[in-house]
Amino acid sequence: MARIVALHTHDVRFPTSRTLDGSDAMNPDPDYSAAYLRLVTDAADGLEGHGFVFTIGRGNDVQVAALRALEGHLLGRDVDALLADLGGVWRELVHDSQLRWLGPEKGIMHMAIGAAVTALWDLRAKREGKPLWQLLSSLSPEEIVDLVDFRYLTDALTRDEALDILRAAQPGRAEREARLLSEGYPAYTTTPGWLGYDDAKLARLCREAVADGFGQIKLKVGADLDEDVRRLRIAREVCGPDVRIAVDANQRWDVGDAIRWLERLRPFDIAWIEEPTSPDDILGHAAIARAVAPIPVATGEHGANRVLFKQMLQANALSVLQLDATRVGGVNENIAILLLAAKFGVRVCPHAGGVGLCEAVQHLAMFDYVAVSGTAEDRMIEFVDHLHEHFVTPVDVHDGRYFAPKAPGAGTEMHASSLAEYAHG
Amino acid sequence: MARIVALHTHDVRFPTSRTLDGSDAMNPDPDYSAAYLRLVTDAADGLEGHGFVFTIGRGNDVQVAALRALEGHLLGRDVDALLADLGGVWRELVHDSQLRWLGPEKGIMHMAIGAAVTALWDLRAKREGKPLWQLLSSLSPEEIVDLVDFRYLTDALTRDEALDILRAAQPGRAEREARLLSEGYPAYTTTPGWLGYDDAKLARLCREAVADGFGQIKLKVGADLDEDVRRLRIAREVCGPDVRIAVDANQRWDVGDAIRWLERLRPFDIAWIEEPTSPDDILGHAAIARAVAPIPVATGEHGANRVLFKQMLQANALSVLQLDATRVGGVNENIAILLLAAKFGVRVCPHAGGVGLCEAVQHLAMFDYVAVSGTAEDRMIEFVDHLHEHFVTPVDVHDGRYFAPKAPGAGTEMHASSLAEYAHG
Repeated sequence: MARIVALHTHDVRFPTSRTLDGSDAMNPDPDYSAAYLRLVTDAADGLEGHGFVFTIGRGNDVQVAALRALEGHLLGRDVDALLADLGGVWRELVHDSQLRWLGPEKGIMHMAIGAAVTALWDLRAKREGKPLWQLLSSLSPEEIVDLVDFRYLTDALTRDEALDILRAAQPGRAEREARLLSEGYPAYTTTPGWLGYDDAKLARLCREAVADGFGQIKLKVGADLDEDVRRLRIAREVCGPDVRIAVDANQRWDVGDAIRWLERLRPFDIAWIEEPTSPDDILGHAAIARAVAPIPVATGEHGANRVLFKQMLQANALSVLQLDATRVGGVNENIAILLLAAKFGVRVCPHAGGVGLCEAVQHLAMFDYVAVSGTAEDRMIEFVDHLHEHFVTPVDVHDGRYFAPKAPGAGTEMHASSLAEYAHG
Repeated sequence: MARIVALHTHDVRFPTSRTLDGSDAMNPDPDYSAAYLRLVTDAADGLEGHGFVFTIGRGNDVQVAALRALEGHLLGRDVDALLADLGGVWRELVHDSQLRWLGPEKGIMHMAIGAAVTALWDLRAKREGKPLWQLLSSLSPEEIVDLVDFRYLTDALTRDEALDILRAAQPGRAEREARLLSEGYPAYTTTPGWLGYDDAKLARLCREAVADGFGQIKLKVGADLDEDVRRLRIAREVCGPDVRIAVDANQRWDVGDAIRWLERLRPFDIAWIEEPTSPDDILGHAAIARAVAPIPVATGEHGANRVLFKQMLQANALSVLQLDATRVGGVNENIAILLLAAKFGVRVCPHAGGVGLCEAVQHLAMFDYVAVSGTAEDRMIEFVDHLHEHFVTPVDVHDGRYFAPKAPGAGTEMHASSLAEYAHG
């Protein structure tokens, strides 16, 4: 019987603040970082499960400490038993009453649990020789709902309703899987839009994005309205009328600010307004959505858990749900969120970028396409061309599309050399 | 010029799970703990600022790591400058963009900032020779609003509206302060109600609570409906019809469960139903409040920040706001929440118990009475008779009332001997 014999953690930080990559109205100087976990077993296959939480620098050590706090739950455990009941593992970790007090189900402790859960999925996918999206897409509707904790969801989504959604998507699974392998999944790019870039760099990157086949780009806004109008004008001129341009305020505004700001940006044919205010403000997002319609409101990268997403959907507070691979409780909670989005008929356009978020979240979007929503219409995964070289199975994005990963695993494994070279402290 | 020369942290854990003190439907075996911070200066007065986060055991080490992550902000800083601008300090800590990513404004990192902010208030109050409630009550309306971060609040409460509230409360300040010193502030007790106690102990503690002058007690419910009915019947028989009995489900239910459960408990004249479901579920609490009316819905001890409370009030999701001293960003954010409650005309009945929560939160309730809401009508502070002996200035509760503390400070200082004796690991 194989057991988990070690949890190795790594505090990995990339000095991205030097180049203002990733700079926006709320985050002027991020150092893209990962609190990284390796689950080591004594199995003869030598396979490890890798997972991480994306952070932007200071405090990454605290996030690593939270990973270590899970040792008591995982060390010495029977690997086969754990991997056979990942729904049960999720519940065990999230409902540990003492750890739960530290959230509950939000912030550092919850994200740590998410990384551990995803590391277990990575291990299971490697053992089964499948990329995670294909592994998840091969599960029966009953197996999938067993992964989901419906606690606090049943006023919006019951287990039976989730089963109905999954069963309705069963017929086309094989065809959609084949299409993903041949044609990939749509992407959009944020590479041109960081706030710290000058006009010449903005224009050059917009041109390159269009040439690279992206149908949508995204600009950071929210620090200065006149500047935003100027930069949007440049982007619109370079991109032409057919490329969609989304804008992202990164939580900078109060409700009234957002509504006033959008009046000035509206003439530029905005694809969506992202994170206009606090990610916790469900009623605020709903008020903004009503006021700026038909401009879609997008949010989710800082959505703490499934209860937040449930309410965002109940309140019509978002029309673009931006799933994030490392903010909530890992793969399992993201499946719950995908099911909620399907129930409410809202499109999912995952948040990515950062460290490894593209590598991780593509599996969830592709699983959604094959086995949950059954559609990629008007959906796309964010793409930022940073730091992919540090991953063992970097994304394959070209012609404006993510091509489906074929390597076993969850996409979350970094090169040992990168873990060593960018080790902090 | 005095500087902060050390941040000493302590991982303090009391083995309360041995006696089932604190046991409820979600927390069967808490070990009441504190992630504790001491700010040491090089001033000749030798005064220190103490603050803490209450936790229930495992993960307290992670909470301590989060306190240490604030060293870069506080070590070496000019004490007079910090204490003269505690609103600015709050903003600096909460809006550190890299640390903010770990919440944002929720969970371990946010609670750590709260403890540091409260430790600074403790130091300031000791230096000024006043208990915190009197220090806060001596500030002008303008000084008080400068402590508050109105970001994300302005659709519900502006700075000018807050000023109006505070100015309206100015006339009676002196009279209310005198009344607090002579008569104290109402309390209610949770001591009888822990789920792990047997019937004889429940009945005995109910009798003692009535004899001690408490006008309200609280029982834990939510694990088993028939058991809850049985225990409520015992409590109602012992207490008689004139003592109010609140019930607390500690987040155990989904929305539908809560509504069904309350139908069975309704005949016992319930004073309020506390934490019926996820503390994040604003819309769920609102649905429950509509269904169980006129039974009041109470929540707040796990409310992550002012944005959550704003929405709870906007949605009529609670009619009893349970302020907690260590869950949000310290004294400053709790002032914001008190102002929101005053704006919406909702009564505040603080959560207490745990480690030192009674000692800390009484200052906020008393400040609210003197300078914000101006009333104690139908309001009371929770009281649990645990662990007070570990504090340098333990609460003075008798005749069912909290008597106003007179010692300088925020009430947050533990005995050095307790820090040493219950040091973990």
